[in-house]
Order: sequence, then structure tokens, then C-alpha cells
Amino acid sequence: MSAVQGLEMLAAVRPMPGGRVFNFSAGPAAMPLEVLEQLRQDLLDLNGSGIGILEHSHRGPVFDALLAESHAAFMRVAGAGKDWAGLFIPGGATLQFGMLPMNFLPEGGHADYADTGLWTTKAIADAKMVGKVNLTFDGKSCAFSRTPRADEAAPSKGAAYHHWCSNNTVDGTKWSVMPTAADGAWLARDASSDIFAEPLDLSGHGFVYAAAQKNLGPSGMTMVLIRRDLLEKSCRTLPSMLRYDEYEKGESRPNTPNTFGIHVVGLMCRWIEKQGGVKAMERLAAERSDIVLKAIDDSGGFWKAHAERWCQSPINVLFRGPSAAIDAAFVIEAAAHGMDGLAGHRSTGGIRASMYNAMPVAGARALADFMRDFARRRG
Amino acid sequence: MSAVQGLEMLAAVRPMPGGRVFNFSAGPAAMPLEVLEQLRQDLLDLNGSGIGILEHSHRGPVFDALLAESHAAFMRVAGAGKDWAGLFIPGGATLQFGMLPMNFLPEGGHADYADTGLWTTKAIADAKMVGKVNLTFDGKSCAFSRTPRADEAAPSKGAAYHHWCSNNTVDGTKWSVMPTAADGAWLARDASSDIFAEPLDLSGHGFVYAAAQKNLGPSGMTMVLIRRDLLEKSCRTLPSMLRYDEYEKGESRPNTPNTFGIHVVGLMCRWIEKQGGVKAMERLAAERSDIVLKAIDDSGGFWKAHAERWCQSPINVLFRGPSAAIDAAFVIEAAAHGMDGLAGHRSTGGIRASMYNAMPVAGARALADFMRDFARRRG
Repeated sequence: MSAVQGLEMLAAVRPMPGGRVFNFSAGPAAMPLEVLEQLRQDLLDLNGSGIGILEHSHRGPVFDALLAESHAAFMRVAGAGKDWAGLFIPGGATLQFGMLPMNFLPEGGHADYADTGLWTTKAIADAKMVGKVNLTFDGKSCAFSRTPRADEAAPSKGAAYHHWCSNNTVDGTKWSVMPTAADGAWLARDASSDIFAEPLDLSGHGFVYAAAQKNLGPSGMTMVLIRRDLLEKSCRTLPSMLRYDEYEKGESRPNTPNTFGIHVVGLMCRWIEKQGGVKAMERLAAERSDIVLKAIDDSGGFWKAHAERWCQSPINVLFRGPSAAIDAAFVIEAAAHGMDGLAGHRSTGGIRASMYNAMPVAGARALADFMRDFARRRG
Repeated sequence: MSAVQGLEMLAAVRPMPGGRVFNFSAGPAAMPLEVLEQLRQDLLDLNGSGIGILEHSHRGPVFDALLAESHAAFMRVAGAGKDWAGLFIPGGATLQFGMLPMNFLPEGGHADYADTGLWTTKAIADAKMVGKVNLTFDGKSCAFSRTPRADEAAPSKGAAYHHWCSNNTVDGTKWSVMPTAADGAWLARDASSDIFAEPLDLSGHGFVYAAAQKNLGPSGMTMVLIRRDLLEKSCRTLPSMLRYDEYEKGESRPNTPNTFGIHVVGLMCRWIEKQGGVKAMERLAAERSDIVLKAIDDSGGFWKAHAERWCQSPINVLFRGPSAAIDAAFVIEAAAHGMDGLAGHRSTGGIRASMYNAMPVAGARALADFMRDFARRRG
């Protein structure tokens, strides 16, 4: 039985309002029902204009107001002051880790990169298309089961910047201490899977980017925070859409932007504020991951966590049962009980529970209960 | 009185179902109500999965099916055979006219560009960041009021490609004859504002791109058709998201794509098919523009068209009254009568009626009636 057949046969248990299921997808990921309901209204008629969000001119007064609100909400939740520019850029984080070296890795110079998972490996490959890379940490040797310890990942002299990924979605690890950059250099952080899941620490940074599809809503768009003094320091001659200063000068609409995506991110940021902000998000993430990790720990060795506990991500929890076949069966059975998206990344296999801001604690409880039940039956 | 105040005071007349207005925006632009209604349903629960379109994994079976359907519908409406790859790429047409020379303008070589409006001027500036450009037509001298005649815009020997924009949104002009490319070279077409408004002629082409926000739905995404033999001929070493072969190998999801945008484009293509396809769209565009042009012609000189008639776009109709103040008053009064988005581009001023596939003929009639009434009152 394929996963699709499994879903079709068994998708009868719907634990959420409106027949919705608990969605543990790594991204695109679960969104709050109230944000979706707002979007449903805005598709037909945005703020009484008689025109839907998809149809509004990106230069008209209705979108002017929406863009200003979305931007302000993002900057508030980020806690980013006037030294920072906040940009909405179409495309995913992959475009950003291409643009970063194109703009800031000088000819003949080099940049530091810590390799902590699939996505940093890809970022490093893209940076090497542009210039020289120094590896500050090579996580491949431990199958990315941990991040650097405090005495590891030292920056190298003269590096233009130090790139790190704070939370590794594929392997479910996070950094326990922030890295540092070389003298005069700055940190560049891929925060795609943990932005606004905890307070954002901008110290030491020049650049932070996060694909929106995990905690901020829509896929195909990325939020970028860039220190203003870096905006016009691009070291290369580039077409306009690859230059950060063009996005800033044009208020994230140097050309027609992803208007819908900008709206969704704005709604998500205001939803986070309504829930109590990033500190509340951090508490909830800890509560959810503790519930699932306890089910692993209580299983008498039936379930095994992938990450070392000291660097366990509170967002993505990876674990495995006694065999790949059992993992696959678990994913299908869980789907039949209204829990979707639990298959591990195609590069790692196993089971992965991704629990972003919009995942209710009830979802973590339902998963933990089912893990216990399953282990009892199969153990 | 500002345009906003005008809208707020007077936006009482709503000629469409659900209080919607006739939206003449140049893009993002009007969409069919039935597509919007489908999207409203899909936001909460896509195809009975219990998960909304924004929340579905881009690697799951539900999205697999959606992507295949959207892609197939696009290729059908495009009439593109197996020699062509069809790609969904995040970002607008501006990113494409940056990527095009990065991939295909060789070091030391040159490319041909016809300058027929604001967007080709920008495309040329971006190409010059990458390499050498030969101008085959300079429309600035006639304020972009016309496109090249059949004996103009000849390609130059050895050019890598010849770039043209078939319909110029800002000035409301279209080409009456297609250009040609140099021996061994190919045409690259910006079809952003006329894709699927008429049958797509791919002859002589290697590359066609179209931002989606005019005839295909969402902004922040662009459709690319690229001849398969060109896919791996990129002349530069580039980060992955700037290479067309990466998008093709990854079925438009080498990383997380704009899943929502892909769905909307698919729905729009199927809607076009339901209306009778691109030939029906072409007939409707002619019908709508004839109605508006007749109101210009019948005004005894009160209204003046911007474009020369032989190259008048059937999509974007630009006209002016006796003064800029009168044009501004018209835009505000029209909004009060349920016709929005009629202000000309900020670079040209005047009045612009953009009538893409989703504009009902009734919208063109309402506009023409109002133009006659206004000219009578102010003439």
C-alpha cells in the first residue's frame, strides 16, 4: 500500500475544525485557521475595495497600506531597529544563498561556512560557484547528528562573512551557542526553520534570511534582514533583481512583488503578536517538543532520536523505530489518525515531526499518544 | 482630493457579483470569480486532504498531482510540444531578463535587443550588467508610441539571441510582425502582458517568459518556456537558482517552489480552456479593445489614443483627455462608478485601461459608456 492509498483509505479521522488534520509537514507547513479564514475573505474583497488581494495593483493605495503594515509587523516581531532593512524577496532560501556570495564574496577573498546539514551543504556548493569557501565545521562526519560545540567552528582571518544555519530542518538539530565572525566580518544566518519560533538575536549579524513557508506562511518567498551599511557594498556588477539595494530602494517592490505572499507574512506576524509574541512561541515550541521527546524516551528504546539531545531542535524532531518498514507503517497509520506529513526528508528517511508556530500543543499530544500506542503494539 | 479619498467617498457603485468592481489594473489584475471561489475552498482543504494549499508539502502526493496538472494545463494552452520545457520560476519578469543574459550572453559576444518600452529599457540595462548589447530598435525617439515596422529591427550577425517584448504594457503597443533572429540564434520574448491572450507562436524562439500577474493570476511568479536544447548550454558558472536546467531537472521544484502560485496558474489555464481557449481569448480581447477605441474615436478629439493604431495593443489601451487634471478627475470619477485601476503608469501618466482575459466585455462597455458621458460633460 502506497502512502497515497493509505491516505485515501483511511483519512477518516479529522481532529481539527473544518475536517482539518494535524499537519507535521516540514514546510510548507500548518497555518492558523484564523489566518486562513482572513485570506479567504481577502481573496474576493480586500478591505472593502471590491478587489481581491491577488488582483490589487502593487502601486495602488490599498496595497501601499498593506505593504507598510506587513513590513512594520515583520520588523516589530524581528525586533529589528533602524540599522536594519527588512525585505520581501520572491524565491526561496536557495536564491538567497546564491545572492549572498554574489554580493559579498569578493574576487580573491573567501567566506566562512559551517556545514551542519543538507541545506548548508547546498549553500556551500552555490558559494563555490562564486568564490572561495573555508569550512569552519564539517558535520558530514557525524551524519549531521549534532551542531558545533562552543569550541568549534572558529572563523578564519579575513573571511568576508560567516554563514550558519541556526536550525537544521532535515536533521532536527540547532546550535546551542551562536558562532562568531572574523574581525570586521559579520554573521549570515539561514533562519528558515526557526525564525520567530524564539526571539531573534541579531547581534554580530549583517544578514539574516528565512524562507517564509515554515513559520511565516507562503512558499516561494523569503524574508531578508540586512544591515543598512551593507546595502550598497555589493562587490559585483549584477542585474537588478540580484542586488539588495534595489529591493530596499523599491520598498520590496522594485518590480511587481509577490503581493499575496507579503499579505500572508503580515497576517502571520500579527497572529504571532496576538499569541504573545516570540517568547510565547518559544515556550510553546519547548512544550511541544518535550511532549514528543518524552514519548521517545519512554519507549524503552523502541524509538530513537536522530539528534544529540543537547542540540535537539525544538521545531523538528527526528526519530526512528526498529526498521525502515516500521517507520513507513507508522507514517501511514498516523495519517489515518489525522496526523500528516510525518515522513522524514528523502535524504534521511525515518520519521520527522515538524512543529512550527501554528501547531497546537494538542497536535504534539496526539502524536505522542499515538507513538506510545504504536510502540506498545509493535514493540 | 486624493485618489484614496475619492475611492473612500464614492466607492458605492459595485457592478459585479459580491460587490466586486471592474478592475482595469495593469497587473496584478482582475481574475475570474470562479477561480477565486475555488481558491477559497482550497485554502482550507485541498482536494479533501484536510490540509490547505498553502500548507501542503511540495513533495507530498497531493501536490505531486497538482503540479503535474498545472504544468500539463500550461503546456496545453501554450501549445508547446516535447521540444520545450515549461518552468514555474519565483520572481517576476525582471529576474528573467537578468537570468537570460547571465545564462546565454557569452563573454565577448553580444545579444540583440529591441527597445519598445519601459520594460525593454530595463531589460537592456540588466543585460549590460552582464555583457554587450546591440540595439535593433530605439523606440525612445517616438516616446514608445509605436513598435518596429516590418523593415525595422533587423538582427545583427553573431548575436546570441534577439530579445523583444510582444506587448508593451506601459505604452499599450504591440508588434504587428514578429522580429527575426540572426542565423543560428533565437528569439527571446517577454510575453508578460499578452501570454494566452492569443495563440502563442513559438516559431523562431528559444525562450519565452511571462510574469503571471496579468493573464495567469498571481504576482511574484513567472512562467518560462525554454527550448530543451538550450537547457544545458548556460555559458556561465552560476548558483543553482539562476540556472534553467536546475528548475527543469527538479520539475520546477529544485527547492521549495511557490506552491500556491503554481496552483493558481493551473486553475487559470484550465479556466482559459473552459472559455474556449486562446482563440476565444483573442476574439474577446479584440471585442473589448474595439469598444474602448470606438469611444475614443467618437469623442471628437476629446480623447486621444497614445499608440499608433496599426500597433495598438488589444490588451492595454492608453488615452488622454485635454489635460492631466482632467485625466486625474476621470480616474477618480470612474472609480466611484465601480471601475478601478485606470491611472496610467507613473512614467507616462494619462489613462490606461488594461483588459486581460478575465475582464468581462461588460467592463469594456461600462468604461466606454462612462468615457462618452464624461466627454459630453467636460467637452
